[in-house]
Amino acid sequence: MTASTSAPHNHRYDGLILGASLATLDCVDGYGEIADAALAWRDGRIAHIGPRAALDAEPADLAATVIHADGWITPGLIDCHTHLVFAGDRAREFELRLQGASYEAIARAGGGIVSSVRATREASEDELLRQSLPRARALLADGATSLEIKSGYGLDFDNERKMLRVARRIGEILGVRVRTTYLGAHALPPEYSDRADAYIDAVCEWMPRLHAEALIDAVDAFCEGIGFSPAQTRRVFETARALGLPVKLHADQLSDLGGGALAAAFDGLSADHVEHTSLDSVRAMAEHGTVAVLLPGAFHVLRETKLPPLQAFREHGVAMAVATDCNPGTSPLLSLRQAMQLSCTHFRLTPEEALRGATVHAARALGLVDAGVLRVGARADFVQWDIGHPAELCYWLGGRLARRVVADGRVLVERGERD
Amino acid sequence: MTASTSAPHNHRYDGLILGASLATLDCVDGYGEIADAALAWRDGRIAHIGPRAALDAEPADLAATVIHADGWITPGLIDCHTHLVFAGDRAREFELRLQGASYEAIARAGGGIVSSVRATREASEDELLRQSLPRARALLADGATSLEIKSGYGLDFDNERKMLRVARRIGEILGVRVRTTYLGAHALPPEYSDRADAYIDAVCEWMPRLHAEALIDAVDAFCEGIGFSPAQTRRVFETARALGLPVKLHADQLSDLGGGALAAAFDGLSADHVEHTSLDSVRAMAEHGTVAVLLPGAFHVLRETKLPPLQAFREHGVAMAVATDCNPGTSPLLSLRQAMQLSCTHFRLTPEEALRGATVHAARALGLVDAGVLRVGARADFVQWDIGHPAELCYWLGGRLARRVVADGRVLVERGERD
Ligand SMILES: [Zn+2]
Ligand SMILES: [Zn+2]
Repeated sequence: MTASTSAPHNHRYDGLILGASLATLDCVDGYGEIADAALAWRDGRIAHIGPRAALDAEPADLAATVIHADGWITPGLIDCHTHLVFAGDRAREFELRLQGASYEAIARAGGGIVSSVRATREASEDELLRQSLPRARALLADGATSLEIKSGYGLDFDNERKMLRVARRIGEILGVRVRTTYLGAHALPPEYSDRADAYIDAVCEWMPRLHAEALIDAVDAFCEGIGFSPAQTRRVFETARALGLPVKLHADQLSDLGGGALAAAFDGLSADHVEHTSLDSVRAMAEHGTVAVLLPGAFHVLRETKLPPLQAFREHGVAMAVATDCNPGTSPLLSLRQAMQLSCTHFRLTPEEALRGATVHAARALGLVDAGVLRVGARADFVQWDIGHPAELCYWLGGRLARRVVADGRVLVERGERD
Repeated sequence: MTASTSAPHNHRYDGLILGASLATLDCVDGYGEIADAALAWRDGRIAHIGPRAALDAEPADLAATVIHADGWITPGLIDCHTHLVFAGDRAREFELRLQGASYEAIARAGGGIVSSVRATREASEDELLRQSLPRARALLADGATSLEIKSGYGLDFDNERKMLRVARRIGEILGVRVRTTYLGAHALPPEYSDRADAYIDAVCEWMPRLHAEALIDAVDAFCEGIGFSPAQTRRVFETARALGLPVKLHADQLSDLGGGALAAAFDGLSADHVEHTSLDSVRAMAEHGTVAVLLPGAFHVLRETKLPPLQAFREHGVAMAVATDCNPGTSPLLSLRQAMQLSCTHFRLTPEEALRGATVHAARALGLVDAGVLRVGARADFVQWDIGHPAELCYWLGGRLARRVVADGRVLVERGERD
């Protein structure tokens, strides 16, 4: 412990952290480095940023809590695409596949998304929370202070509601910011087989009821040959728009259905996956400010080879975010840092792009205007890392680099040097 | 904490852990599962294994320390190939490469292995220890109770000695088993440029002196077009053999120089990397019991496509181990579990093969006869994992699955449910 708390006093700040280098990302290019810095916060917001040498008073006179740090401080990471609320896991299915079992055999053994739907429906709300919390804790311990969490394994009103309630409870319990996304249009539940349009009717009918309980921050759909059609997606989006809810889309993962352009046409926050997104969609996304969310975990696990149109995104100024896609089937990632590493290895993002992708651009993908950057007035969400250069966040696979994780000015994780 | 310590007593065991499922791996096929088990140890060795229900007395009467557990217990993981002692890191070089810098530009900027050699030479022994310890701690926290550590960034007598001394100190400080490998023949130091044979003379001359200080458990070389020739490697191995030291080899990573067969000809413990190993080498390895050590981290980072001859290893009964290759240039892995995940994703190993590769087979690659398996008489090295099935160890990327890590019957890592 290097924190010291002095007696009650008329302090300018609640907290002050000194000595680390900051990667503010409050700039167009580079990390926005401030070496040997002072970062202070008050009422959960950043109140001061600058070189330590420029402080105009003794630290103990400035803040109630003073932390002496080294390494680097970045904005708290933001995981803008997760399905981390689910029951059961699919490790056994993963094993069967590696043992050479066919997809039919796996389906017969109860594998696939239907197994997650079944387990999630069977779990009580408390049980679902109990199973999901460790995943959120793992993401937090590796530096994520904001998490998006989708529904989509309930696929009926009560179970979608249960998932979204669990997502909210995770935020309350852990003190991380949770943004919920209603993904009723994730898959067709067995009771609606061959009746996809009727199911979309139901998804649209449940939306205002869930929204009335303040359970929805955004609306998503899985637009794909094996998911829902563009026309069905459009109906979901129109319902969302009528309710004033922003949209995002699982778009163009396995084929180009124009998902990027469809999301953009509704001023979507993001189009996610986007491996097969066309240049027309890229242009539309640029025009409407729709973020491209890259999900290298699924790309890795599925051993995909088709890269997203990264250079086109860069050239057209489409912001690229990076997220875990934490889910039991195609992306069992419990670390956003690992997603950043995979985005560098598989997609050749630079470490700076990957870090912006997990902070500034991820904030945009969630419509968060006051997070993802170290700037006076922004949320006091930051991570102190045991590293000598920000590129290390993308370089190491595994390891425990986060020394302190702070959200809204509250220290949520603090690790000793020997832990 | 669920451990309870009773008053001094004439206990049969020092410790007893109850309730978890065991993956003993003490079998030819499968995990060797014992559900709801009791595992006891005394004097650092496993003293009892069986179903909990078969215990013949009250737990508190049997052992001084009783731990109630759930999840799964596996043998402690064994990382049989690491270069984790080094100074500096190469994250900046990683970044330059992703920014499109040429290899020449990176070399001019001081990149490549020479930069690790320079930093390692410049560091004092204490500084080298300070920089290396967190990497060993990270591996331990993710379940590794035995680590192999190579020299090879010193490349002169004093600095190779310094590296090996640091490796030994890491073992003493952390309580993990460290096996040191002398890798003087890792690269040609600048002072010997164009005089590789003279450098090999020096490597062979240093070997008995380092061995006299008990700093060498095995001897390794980098046999490759960009490394040392088979003839040079042979001279190193002959010197090792004369000293009674076992050998292992960086073999056939980038091309087939017959490295597998060369290691086998010296009854080598292992041939490592082995992407380009020929069928003749596979046969020789099978005949001599030489383990194939797979290093999927370097394969991943270098984006290699040539797979090791996995099916030939299986068919000829060559044991396959899996290791991190933890090093600053090509495999910055701080988790053996991540190497296991990558071995499943890239090499299509089954989770069972990956787990054996990081336990039983890794023990063989280090010549450890009493580790890597849960069996009465073996070292009391084990890990309690927060998982519902052993395949989860290979399924999740990131996360904190190890609840307790025990080596020689001592609890080295213990994590609370909420940590
Ligand atoms: Zn998704
Ligand atoms: Zn190596």
